Amino acid sequence: MPSYTGPVEDLQFVLHEVLKISEQDVPGYDELDAEFTGAILGEAAKISSEVIAPLNTVGDQEGVTMENGVVRTPTGFKEAFDQLREGGWTGLDCDPEYGGQGMPYLMQVATGEMFSAANQAFMMYPGLTHGAYSAIHAHGTDEQKAKWLPKMVSCEWTGTMNLTEPHCGTDLGLMRTKAEPQDNGTYKITGQKIFISAGDHDMADNIIHLVLAKIPGGPDGIKGVSLFIVPKFLVDDEGTIGARNGVSVGKVEEKMGIHGNATCVMNYDEAEGYLLGEAHKGMRAMFTMMNEARLGVGMQGLSQAVAAYQNAVIYAKDRLQGRDVTGVKNPDGPADPIIVHPDVRRMLMDQKSFIEGARAFGLWGGTMLDRAHRNQDDEAEGLISLLTPVLKGFLTDQGFDMTVQAQQVYGGHGYIEEWGMSQFTRDARITQIYEGANGVQALDLVGRKLSSGGGKPAMALFQMIKDFCKEAAAQDEEIAKEFVEPLKTASKQLQEAAMYFMQSMKTPNNALAGSYDFMHMFGHVCLGYVWTQMALAAKAKLAAGEGNAEFYETKLVTGRYYMARRLPACSMHLSRILSGADTVMSLDAEAF
Amino acid sequence: MPSYTGPVEDLQFVLHEVLKISEQDVPGYDELDAEFTGAILGEAAKISSEVIAPLNTVGDQEGVTMENGVVRTPTGFKEAFDQLREGGWTGLDCDPEYGGQGMPYLMQVATGEMFSAANQAFMMYPGLTHGAYSAIHAHGTDEQKAKWLPKMVSCEWTGTMNLTEPHCGTDLGLMRTKAEPQDNGTYKITGQKIFISAGDHDMADNIIHLVLAKIPGGPDGIKGVSLFIVPKFLVDDEGTIGARNGVSVGKVEEKMGIHGNATCVMNYDEAEGYLLGEAHKGMRAMFTMMNEARLGVGMQGLSQAVAAYQNAVIYAKDRLQGRDVTGVKNPDGPADPIIVHPDVRRMLMDQKSFIEGARAFGLWGGTMLDRAHRNQDDEAEGLISLLTPVLKGFLTDQGFDMTVQAQQVYGGHGYIEEWGMSQFTRDARITQIYEGANGVQALDLVGRKLSSGGGKPAMALFQMIKDFCKEAAAQDEEIAKEFVEPLKTASKQLQEAAMYFMQSMKTPNNALAGSYDFMHMFGHVCLGYVWTQMALAAKAKLAAGEGNAEFYETKLVTGRYYMARRLPACSMHLSRILSGADTVMSLDAEAF
Repeated sequence: MPSYTGPVEDLQFVLHEVLKISEQDVPGYDELDAEFTGAILGEAAKISSEVIAPLNTVGDQEGVTMENGVVRTPTGFKEAFDQLREGGWTGLDCDPEYGGQGMPYLMQVATGEMFSAANQAFMMYPGLTHGAYSAIHAHGTDEQKAKWLPKMVSCEWTGTMNLTEPHCGTDLGLMRTKAEPQDNGTYKITGQKIFISAGDHDMADNIIHLVLAKIPGGPDGIKGVSLFIVPKFLVDDEGTIGARNGVSVGKVEEKMGIHGNATCVMNYDEAEGYLLGEAHKGMRAMFTMMNEARLGVGMQGLSQAVAAYQNAVIYAKDRLQGRDVTGVKNPDGPADPIIVHPDVRRMLMDQKSFIEGARAFGLWGGTMLDRAHRNQDDEAEGLISLLTPVLKGFLTDQGFDMTVQAQQVYGGHGYIEEWGMSQFTRDARITQIYEGANGVQALDLVGRKLSSGGGKPAMALFQMIKDFCKEAAAQDEEIAKEFVEPLKTASKQLQEAAMYFMQSMKTPNNALAGSYDFMHMFGHVCLGYVWTQMALAAKAKLAAGEGNAEFYETKLVTGRYYMARRLPACSMHLSRILSGADTVMSLDAEAF
Repeated sequence: MPSYTGPVEDLQFVLHEVLKISEQDVPGYDELDAEFTGAILGEAAKISSEVIAPLNTVGDQEGVTMENGVVRTPTGFKEAFDQLREGGWTGLDCDPEYGGQGMPYLMQVATGEMFSAANQAFMMYPGLTHGAYSAIHAHGTDEQKAKWLPKMVSCEWTGTMNLTEPHCGTDLGLMRTKAEPQDNGTYKITGQKIFISAGDHDMADNIIHLVLAKIPGGPDGIKGVSLFIVPKFLVDDEGTIGARNGVSVGKVEEKMGIHGNATCVMNYDEAEGYLLGEAHKGMRAMFTMMNEARLGVGMQGLSQAVAAYQNAVIYAKDRLQGRDVTGVKNPDGPADPIIVHPDVRRMLMDQKSFIEGARAFGLWGGTMLDRAHRNQDDEAEGLISLLTPVLKGFLTDQGFDMTVQAQQVYGGHGYIEEWGMSQFTRDARITQIYEGANGVQALDLVGRKLSSGGGKPAMALFQMIKDFCKEAAAQDEEIAKEFVEPLKTASKQLQEAAMYFMQSMKTPNNALAGSYDFMHMFGHVCLGYVWTQMALAAKAKLAAGEGNAEFYETKLVTGRYYMARRLPACSMHLSRILSGADTVMSLDAEAF
């Protein structure tokens, strides 16, 4: 069975030596000194490896069952959920007014990586609840917040998000679920929703569904969609649970992975619902949580890569097969461990260099969200909005690829379920699809975010990288050569692609046909950027003779690998983009 | 449930208009005129879509079960196998002396693509039998051939290949299974083998295991391995089935995919076995079938991409979501079919352009094998040996990636097992692992094949491409610009990488650390080469006003896509290779 160890040292390095969070002028960050975050992260790592991770294969193998309309989670899930609740982990960054710990969102990102790595399917129960909490917190009335939030912060009640219907996923304007206004101010919700994660289960007293629906007579399409709170059980003004609402589970889907999470078809049959936010502004309400939710999914993609990588390393050191061509490494054994073989190294370095870069990128994203929310910093808001599709699309695509690489290290054993490596691949696969399929992320990036605010956030980022390159190159010759040069090249290529899109405004398909490559290029540039920062930080520590020298040396080697072996993907992406839309679009649909 | 249609028109195009097989001077090819191959392929397509494909999801969902030591295949498998046997498909290219049809191997490749696309797990039962047949045919005595082959050609008896043991896969020198010689010339085989595909089942009267084992007292390591015929039931000289042999199934593995195939742990307990070929030369016997077997797995990888692609196209034309940004395409519907969106197109064109190129590459490989075997052509033997790791590694890696793309076209529905797209991804995944994991293919390519025969086959291939480029460019200006130029660039990059490897002979890790990128680069160059040939053939037909103009126009557009959007991967691979082994190898194993 796979194991998992929380990467506390690496998280601490990024938080304190790269992002230098306690020096940042963000409300709440002053409390985040290394000792405090170390204690939080250490505890989260412990629960992850000891409580949650051991249930990962259990969840995969048992899956969720439904009998007589009752949905049951796998053995041990409820007890683990209790531990999470009791430790206050479900409300880490939630509003203290409703029982939360009030920590910056950054800590949610950092602990979330570990929790998800330990058991993605399990963590989706509190994860979806957190999303529903955020929506109610941002858009609810004081009464609604007082009624629903405390139990959601504690996860006594869990939450869900109901968007998709059988005939509409990306294009929610086609939605059919309707909400009939009642005389008492409530609504009757009727319709079918699909792919509802954590839609039903046996681990909470109530489930609070947030449901998108159309109020008859409202505007057509996406502009006529409203958001409703629809509890599984009705709750009176004293907070006492009452009658069952008109919501039921149609079925639990059989999926490729995340078997431990109940992905439900939800049927609403005149269910009582309460308007959340303004009528017909449901999509706007969803959008306010989108950056958080998408960063969260990006971190899930990364997290599966981390868990898979850790096990691949263990296997590569343990499995004896063949000999090092440069000289026997394990003379007393029948063969050398496969980690001596260059191609096994390549796979491990691909994974390691992605993981550590992606972690820094994700945490950087967390600081931007905190700045946007805690400092009302518009620049940070603009930057995180720009980077959100990259964080979601790039981290999940690459994260999935890395689980495949980790599985490959195991050879045939990687394909056998008993070894647990297949699950990481199967679980990671969903992160490329849900919360906006990655093609939709690319469209969002190129079609909206790149030109949003007159292109100011993009320009600011390019300038930020340019200034940083100049500064970094001046500090250290080796860094200049090994890190800054490739970063400059990649960043220029990214800007060339952006320029090409802008120049072909009249043929929008040029930009759309290149959007996916652009998203990946953008991700590589961001990872190159954080890798250069990490290299500088590591070098500074080595020069000062501080800390764990081996850790910093390893960091430099890993960063060099990324710059030399991963960043060159940018030139390929640029070539593809500059080839334009003609070869992509010129076939008639019937010719496929 | 997914459907499947055999791509007969495209196979015929490659066989007759690109490879021009009936003009080739290979014994047996004179019979392969378009009418004849069309009839064979048409019939194979019919069985594939009507008989075998409908059992694909059945096999995935039911899987193989074992009760009281009896292994049962999924519902319908036996009846479908009967149809395959009755149609003579199991012996298509087998020796007529033993009941085969005696067709060139090329026809096995062409029909095999369709059969595997329809149901990979099912086709592994006759597939493994064919491998065992080839080994006995090449290395057996006349008596052995007469005794075992007729029933294996007809698949009344099936076969298996037993190589892997729990502690050794790639490094078979560590093998522990032993073969004790008996006074009567037989051997007693004792040991455990794992990952034995089609290891046991209920569809044949007997199963003929080919087992690698060590005769005590023989040379150490890989040089002391011998190959044995070990039947499930002993067979007397009249061919009558007798007592059960000392071989049993330890368990049937739970796997990520190919659930319909019984992957068994096989226990040999003093089982009676018969030496096949010379003692201690078992590996050599295995190697003689390796090119065929690896090309076969490459075609499996391709086949899953084909099946997945066909369904993605159907879905993309059917699913209505969003509007074409350049103008509404389906004004009477609530939205346009998603095939209008450039990023959906990108995914479909990636798949289509890979599939058609890979098909031509695979069939070209089939002609090389026929030349090598039927003409005793050493040049063809050298070339196919060089290209075998590319055919296996590149076609399965890319084939898997394409199944992931096809799944992505379905959005959330792609993740739900009911839709069947997950299975293509899960089934394709094994092709990257078995028959030599793809990293081992890359090692074989760079460590052995590239320099084999003093590098003559590689030089010959590079020269062949160079001459072809000159000739093709002279024929047509458009082809020169759109196809030959990118092919020349990519081919030069490939040679530059090969040169770099040769120049760093003293640091073999440079070559080994770049081997995987080299294999992929090589694959792209080969696909660029066959695409240029296909483009020329299509243009010639269009110029002559012959045949289906739409087919040829589509071919040209698809080829242009490959050259403009896929081939640029070569420059990325070259950059990675030229960065050398330092960043790959410089970490201590403990630093991972």
